[in-house]
Amino acid sequence: MLTHSPYEPLQARTLADRLGGLPEMTGRIGPAAQWRVREVGDGNLNLVFIVEGAAGSIIVKQALPYARVVGESWPMSLDRAFFEHEALLRLGSRDPGRLPELYYFDRHQAIQIMEHLQPHIILRKGLMAGERYPLLAGQIGRYLARTLFRGSDWAMETARRKADLALFAGNVELCGITEDLFFTDPFHDCARNSHGPALDRAVAAIRADRDLKLAALELKARFCCSAQTLLHGDLHTGSIMACADDTRVIDAEFATYGPIGFDIGSLLANLWMAAFALPGLQPDREERRAYRDWILDTAEAVWSVFVEEFTRLWRCERAGILGGRELFEEQADPIGSELALNTMIAEIWRDAVGFAGIEIHRRILGLAHIPEFETIANEAVRACCEHRALMAGRVLAVERGRFAAIGQVRTLMTMLEGRTL
Amino acid sequence: MLTHSPYEPLQARTLADRLGGLPEMTGRIGPAAQWRVREVGDGNLNLVFIVEGAAGSIIVKQALPYARVVGESWPMSLDRAFFEHEALLRLGSRDPGRLPELYYFDRHQAIQIMEHLQPHIILRKGLMAGERYPLLAGQIGRYLARTLFRGSDWAMETARRKADLALFAGNVELCGITEDLFFTDPFHDCARNSHGPALDRAVAAIRADRDLKLAALELKARFCCSAQTLLHGDLHTGSIMACADDTRVIDAEFATYGPIGFDIGSLLANLWMAAFALPGLQPDREERRAYRDWILDTAEAVWSVFVEEFTRLWRCERAGILGGRELFEEQADPIGSELALNTMIAEIWRDAVGFAGIEIHRRILGLAHIPEFETIANEAVRACCEHRALMAGRVLAVERGRFAAIGQVRTLMTMLEGRTL
Repeated sequence: MLTHSPYEPLQARTLADRLGGLPEMTGRIGPAAQWRVREVGDGNLNLVFIVEGAAGSIIVKQALPYARVVGESWPMSLDRAFFEHEALLRLGSRDPGRLPELYYFDRHQAIQIMEHLQPHIILRKGLMAGERYPLLAGQIGRYLARTLFRGSDWAMETARRKADLALFAGNVELCGITEDLFFTDPFHDCARNSHGPALDRAVAAIRADRDLKLAALELKARFCCSAQTLLHGDLHTGSIMACADDTRVIDAEFATYGPIGFDIGSLLANLWMAAFALPGLQPDREERRAYRDWILDTAEAVWSVFVEEFTRLWRCERAGILGGRELFEEQADPIGSELALNTMIAEIWRDAVGFAGIEIHRRILGLAHIPEFETIANEAVRACCEHRALMAGRVLAVERGRFAAIGQVRTLMTMLEGRTL
Repeated sequence: MLTHSPYEPLQARTLADRLGGLPEMTGRIGPAAQWRVREVGDGNLNLVFIVEGAAGSIIVKQALPYARVVGESWPMSLDRAFFEHEALLRLGSRDPGRLPELYYFDRHQAIQIMEHLQPHIILRKGLMAGERYPLLAGQIGRYLARTLFRGSDWAMETARRKADLALFAGNVELCGITEDLFFTDPFHDCARNSHGPALDRAVAAIRADRDLKLAALELKARFCCSAQTLLHGDLHTGSIMACADDTRVIDAEFATYGPIGFDIGSLLANLWMAAFALPGLQPDREERRAYRDWILDTAEAVWSVFVEEFTRLWRCERAGILGGRELFEEQADPIGSELALNTMIAEIWRDAVGFAGIEIHRRILGLAHIPEFETIANEAVRACCEHRALMAGRVLAVERGRFAAIGQVRTLMTMLEGRTL
């Protein structure tokens, strides 16, 4: 029996033997004798296999007992597969169709078997290839509004919300990664960090920048203590799969209760970094400018769709203990609840801007870098792109209260585009 | 066996039969044959017995399966005794000697047996009798700093903090009472509310006061989502027992993770209300003025001692993930961490001011009134005292960001003292 054998990592050559008896597999892709298995995991933590059979294909994802990005020297609990599974169930029910369908979960072996998304590719790769995704902003803006609103005390029955808070408080190890790798490591000389040598001077300035470090610590406190909703917890462009007519969110193992702005800021930062990397990726000046505009338009549309959908849900699904209908609608003062909404959106936005600033720093100075910058062969060009992104990130984190509208971020980026290192 | 019988409320006449076999009782107060038992519970929720024996006396506290203040029509889980016990263990270890000593806990019967504090009386009664407690501010200011700092992510190991967060997330029912009775009920026409008829007009104005209701809802969100530390959760002057040379904190069944400012604001509000009630309680003008000054001095000293002790702990016990030593002290920038402390204290203060404003409203308009006002026989005088307190509470809640120092609250109170209804 699979569930009673000791935990063992799957291999492409053992997978059919080990999983071939599962009706969840054979019922969907046909008998194991015809399976072709490829390991395709390029993330930082897990094994991911595509299994192709006579009748179709399927994804098998297994957690490793260590962080793949570092190796066996960084042990990591298999429980993260459990938390990912619990998060997928909740996020999937809050925005049906936006996550891959789950077929099977084995907690002991830390294996999830799920829908093979086709012809989707990782959004980050699509952006690096200059692809355009017309449905991306709408689908992800609504995903953000629905999952973040519906997991909160504004929407949920309080006992269920508190039970979920308690459950995901157990995801200590992956939360700890976020807490340290986002908010602390990039801002001091930590052994896990790395950066290109051309950035040495900029990095020294960052690590002496008291205002930036104070902002990082304040945002860390907000991440740790502001349990507003169930977050995806790692919503960058590598956690989204996209094709022309569909967008999906994957890899929710970092799920935790935290501030609504966190997922939004993570995603916006990764879109903005995709734009900052363009001088190193797209040689054609006109195409570069047009694609940069498309990325910035998309980021702005993600936010405006988020606001629109969040507003709709606020008006029609505000059933939780923070709803406040007794105070406003039920006293014939719907304006009161609209003002509460305005305050809330302003707070979410300020948080998102700050978290975006932190995400930019950790992706250039910390442990987990991104290929947009890493694949720029010309070191001087790469350093210049990274430095502009860092300058933007610093302003976003420190001056997060001074961006009243997302268009002001575009202005900031435009001003930085002329700057050289 | 006690633990295997079905739950049954104790009675003064059955207590010796039921608990007489416990060495935790007989070892401290002598054989059950000589016990004298009195029920003295005057709180809203529980049975409390003083048991006197040949060798001493002891307190037996038992949760009832309903809210005593309302009656059996409001059922309430016995689990609250479990959460109170867990909270007492933690708060007691964070500020040793400030809580009663616990001798015995029976979860199934929801019974706690603890130290009988003598000659302590409930602080609220002492304040109504015009007593002065020279050690109160120091002991409670330090209690607040120690318990609130040491239960937070600034001090605790993160896995233990998250485990505690998860544990106390189970205290849903009592949290729900706070959430609704503090932040919502007083601001709309809720059946649980009551107030004197002379306040009708003022109450109508409050329930039409959009800014106040927005403030209440924002502070409710802060209470629900800002899981900074383990709170006592109900730290008013009825949860403190005092005598000339000692101060103790009791009744922690409302314990939950929440914002640091909550316990502070609850306590300050109750001190301030004790001052607002003086015109109805103390006929002598000179004595009234002197005692009012002593109360306000005490409130100010509670806050200044809190700041002093919190600062000391910040400097020497900041070992948690929010400590930020890597960013400041370890980079030879101790000024950075002092600035982070300043920001933190300003945030705690703003929260405390806001929560104090809410506490004042719920104690005059909500379910659980306080005897300072209730015992004022002259209805017009009572209404005048209550109305002044409500005017102060409104300013504190709505304008919580405009009080830079606690002395400014004294100024506000002085300005309101001349006002009549």
